[in-house]
Amino acid sequence: MASNGNGNGQTAEQTESQHFSPYRTDGKLYGFVCVVTGATQPVGKAIVTELAAHGAACIYACSSSDSNTPYAELATSVNSTYPNTKVIGYPYKTDSEEDTLALIDEVLNAWGRLDVWTSSTGLLGPASITHTSPKDLYLAFETTSMPAFYALKYAPAAMQKTTPRGSYPNAAPKDTAYGSIIVVSSVAGTYGGCWGPAFTMSSHAALGVVRSGVAVLKGTGVRINAVTAGQIDVGVDLSGAEIKGGLAQFPPASLQSVEVQRRNIGLERAGRPEEVGRVAGFLASGFSSYITGAELRVDGGASVMNPLTVPV
Amino acid sequence: MASNGNGNGQTAEQTESQHFSPYRTDGKLYGFVCVVTGATQPVGKAIVTELAAHGAACIYACSSSDSNTPYAELATSVNSTYPNTKVIGYPYKTDSEEDTLALIDEVLNAWGRLDVWTSSTGLLGPASITHTSPKDLYLAFETTSMPAFYALKYAPAAMQKTTPRGSYPNAAPKDTAYGSIIVVSSVAGTYGGCWGPAFTMSSHAALGVVRSGVAVLKGTGVRINAVTAGQIDVGVDLSGAEIKGGLAQFPPASLQSVEVQRRNIGLERAGRPEEVGRVAGFLASGFSSYITGAELRVDGGASVMNPLTVPV
Amino acid sequence: MASNGNGNGQTAEQTESQHFSPYRTDGKLYGFVCVVTGATQPVGKAIVTELAAHGAACIYACSSSDSNTPYAELATSVNSTYPNTKVIGYPYKTDSEEDTLALIDEVLNAWGRLDVWTSSTGLLGPASITHTSPKDLYLAFETTSMPAFYALKYAPAAMQKTTPRGSYPNAAPKDTAYGSIIVVSSVAGTYGGCWGPAFTMSSHAALGVVRSGVAVLKGTGVRINAVTAGQIDVGVDLSGAEIKGGLAQFPPASLQSVEVQRRNIGLERAGRPEEVGRVAGFLASGFSSYITGAELRVDGGASVMNPLTVPV
Amino acid sequence: MASNGNGNGQTAEQTESQHFSPYRTDGKLYGFVCVVTGATQPVGKAIVTELAAHGAACIYACSSSDSNTPYAELATSVNSTYPNTKVIGYPYKTDSEEDTLALIDEVLNAWGRLDVWTSSTGLLGPASITHTSPKDLYLAFETTSMPAFYALKYAPAAMQKTTPRGSYPNAAPKDTAYGSIIVVSSVAGTYGGCWGPAFTMSSHAALGVVRSGVAVLKGTGVRINAVTAGQIDVGVDLSGAEIKGGLAQFPPASLQSVEVQRRNIGLERAGRPEEVGRVAGFLASGFSSYITGAELRVDGGASVMNPLTVPV
Repeated sequence: MASNGNGNGQTAEQTESQHFSPYRTDGKLYGFVCVVTGATQPVGKAIVTELAAHGAACIYACSSSDSNTPYAELATSVNSTYPNTKVIGYPYKTDSEEDTLALIDEVLNAWGRLDVWTSSTGLLGPASITHTSPKDLYLAFETTSMPAFYALKYAPAAMQKTTPRGSYPNAAPKDTAYGSIIVVSSVAGTYGGCWGPAFTMSSHAALGVVRSGVAVLKGTGVRINAVTAGQIDVGVDLSGAEIKGGLAQFPPASLQSVEVQRRNIGLERAGRPEEVGRVAGFLASGFSSYITGAELRVDGGASVMNPLTVPV
Repeated sequence: MASNGNGNGQTAEQTESQHFSPYRTDGKLYGFVCVVTGATQPVGKAIVTELAAHGAACIYACSSSDSNTPYAELATSVNSTYPNTKVIGYPYKTDSEEDTLALIDEVLNAWGRLDVWTSSTGLLGPASITHTSPKDLYLAFETTSMPAFYALKYAPAAMQKTTPRGSYPNAAPKDTAYGSIIVVSSVAGTYGGCWGPAFTMSSHAALGVVRSGVAVLKGTGVRINAVTAGQIDVGVDLSGAEIKGGLAQFPPASLQSVEVQRRNIGLERAGRPEEVGRVAGFLASGFSSYITGAELRVDGGASVMNPLTVPV
Repeated sequence: MASNGNGNGQTAEQTESQHFSPYRTDGKLYGFVCVVTGATQPVGKAIVTELAAHGAACIYACSSSDSNTPYAELATSVNSTYPNTKVIGYPYKTDSEEDTLALIDEVLNAWGRLDVWTSSTGLLGPASITHTSPKDLYLAFETTSMPAFYALKYAPAAMQKTTPRGSYPNAAPKDTAYGSIIVVSSVAGTYGGCWGPAFTMSSHAALGVVRSGVAVLKGTGVRINAVTAGQIDVGVDLSGAEIKGGLAQFPPASLQSVEVQRRNIGLERAGRPEEVGRVAGFLASGFSSYITGAELRVDGGASVMNPLTVPV
Repeated sequence: MASNGNGNGQTAEQTESQHFSPYRTDGKLYGFVCVVTGATQPVGKAIVTELAAHGAACIYACSSSDSNTPYAELATSVNSTYPNTKVIGYPYKTDSEEDTLALIDEVLNAWGRLDVWTSSTGLLGPASITHTSPKDLYLAFETTSMPAFYALKYAPAAMQKTTPRGSYPNAAPKDTAYGSIIVVSSVAGTYGGCWGPAFTMSSHAALGVVRSGVAVLKGTGVRINAVTAGQIDVGVDLSGAEIKGGLAQFPPASLQSVEVQRRNIGLERAGRPEEVGRVAGFLASGFSSYITGAELRVDGGASVMNPLTVPV
């Protein structure tokens, strides 16, 4: 990338350290220390794998799950392919301010830096308004919106810390204040009709975190963006229990027929968790260095397909 | 209005009763029974006045205020101009499900119908993220988003009730299921940079109520829409205490210089509460009969003015 | 409407003349001189009727049609109900700069004022990209976008002229610079999937006129807004010839089954031309005095209905 | 990337050939044959460089410029860093249907495949409406909107062609119908206030191409997306002549003071052409495989910064 000047009298080198160059051959996220919430859900898993694929040094795989099994499985799976990325299973209450602060402390103590925070928690909640109680709504805000808010409130100070090169695999010095916060949400944050009011309201609020974040982050070097996913196929991870309890992150694609998907989605199929993970990887990296406050819609074109299309 | 047919084989008369005709000379809202929350705030007051100006039979002026003074003042002020509209001061906890149900019961018992519900509660909350605690966020959701949710959940059943003509002033029969829910919110529901994260997040969630409402309301005859206000001058009602405590409904226009307004707002001035009230009146009436799920932006053009405008 | 002050030190009376009060009992548009293009199409006709219903003094009913029949029929129909509104059939090339200027000259010479301009021309164009030639695209821009541009370029100077009370029916003095430009377009201006690329592209460009208009109109007292209509039932005016030739203003609702409408539209039916006309009347009047640069969506809630709704 | 199944009963391998894997170590665009229009402008140059950096086999660097100098310079510059990517200077009338077809023929004849088409032509046009003639508007549509339309109309058939591995550098077989069309436009396509009406209207129309494209492209394997750039610093390429003549692709950042940028842009600076180029590279690659019909805003957060921010 030859670029020797910009209008502010800075060279590209000044705005973009070689250690953060997205073009480094050892990975666009080489040396990054990352937090991924919702990591035991299909999309969270895909994000962990994606960040590892691009050279992240360490990924805290977080969720509210107490069991060690899913973390161990994820770490094993990722390390078999990317042995130099350390995956740390870290169960904590994602809706707790204290727990969030404790996690950040631990990350800084252990690694001296924090680069990427993806928040992909979510709760479908009841599908119909009749069954939606105030308690359901607060639970939806707690699960879907609060973790994103805590990331915006507390991660930036940690992301601004620089540190010399460590002595672990995939280590790189951090010589620039840099950070990327990624809020993985649903297209339910932009329009309605998708699952019940609790999901729509809390997804909207999650987008509100991103949009209020641009002003909050001025001068920090940290960016914040949203990924709004359409119909994502979470495959074998879906079970009847999840649908009823509303624990799933996204409305189950399997409730829709292939025929309906073919009619309403431009790409004629549901998305795969990896396809959301890849967009998170892009937003985490310097490839998106001038993107902040944005919403990246990952829905196979469904939202620009007018349902009133006249088939001529 | 001559219109004798539509594509569904219904005549306009079938879809639109003469009692609900927006063209009746005694007022486009003649005979309507309305609930207005936030009624002791400038915009709420303006909405009460507007609904009265168009012939509403009764308006429940509601807010969480315990004192009778503001209600009495409002009733007196409105009745001096519109003596046939009954303004009933009704303090209740707008964020309480039970209180909302009790209000609806009282309305139906007293009038047999409910036609319009405007939710214009709001809480600015802290201006900076540093001072925004989880408690502030939940308070913001409670104040800004929950009352709109309760309206969507409980008003429609009441709005579908029909009733013969009563024997009070401005009475009209209700012979059609009809209702309009209006969520008065801020442009902070659509982008950021305006006041703190609590205000932006809860304003987004309020818009989520509107967007999820379209599917909820199918087949009921009830519409739901949002008014998103830009900079509104709430005049003498603003006091230092309100700013600090964040009790005001909208960010105080007086914190902006006239020069900044001139540069950034197409109409070069802040809006007046009545200008929001008038839009609520339009959405309450049959003039907006094919508008639902929409966001009516009332911001003097500020949101389409690119701040990067090159003045050539 | 009691409102004695605003934050800019102006009284409401200073910003809003009594002659322009939307509350006057003889009509919210009393005394207005209006231009309506597309006036021989169903929506245009509905707009003419709506403006008359609210007291307009004169309406130039314009279109590119050479035949006098449709104008005469429209004038007769409107005058039988609203005898004091003069409807003037005025065929001209809506895509001609010279003809637009000539029309404005004639209006000012005859009436001394111009208050409202609604542009509702449109051309569906080919339904498929295979049949869309460059010529079709330019024709679409010419028909759909250029008339709105001419209105923005030339109407404001005329709208700023004031004049004493005339001696014709429904006359009122104009003592304030005031004007409202209304661009009636389609939801095809905001997303895709609705008819072919020529219709989508030119509808987008028409919205571009509105959004660029806010900066253009600063300081003039003139507002500009868009009405984006969803599926509108243009009833008996539709004929096979029109569909093929693409002369219709909106995609014919009759090509959709009632079942599809019920599934995809919140209000479960297509809209009626009058329902678009009423929104134009609102935007023409002082009831929308703080709305400019806005898009009022009139689509029965279709655009916020996610086609992926999970029916639980 | 381990992913062995999705909900449609297809394996990831079936939907995503190894030749198209974005994870291949020799580049996420390895073997791709690309067309870049506007290639003699700063953003176009940056796109060419970006595509080369990720392993493209061949890039047709196109613009309406007749002179060979800029193409030769670009080819030399790119080849010194990426010797295996062939850059072919190709001047043609981007607004000509015949010339577009001739280019596609030549690409297929020479390479047997077409994978990526980026359209980044543009014309600022007059800054004020007073100086905007119909001719200016048509020129803006011709320059900004038509090339995107031609790409949508003609590129997909070529992109669906498969071919065995060639015998040139960076060659790979194409065994899947695949293609990505990228329309590089401005935030002027989404709101106003940025330069004159011709730029806003034609940028809107360019977005219309993208949104109408999703339905057009169903079943083809081709995606289409928009990049909407905010204030981009085109550096030394800007000259007075360009501003006056309106030949520049984007409004010159240098007309804005650093102070204004700091106030209104989240990242407090204008973007660099490479930062737009990188987003084009993402959209060209399989990393964005479930993104179509989307608008990726690259504006440093300016559009979500409310100009009415109250600085508390």
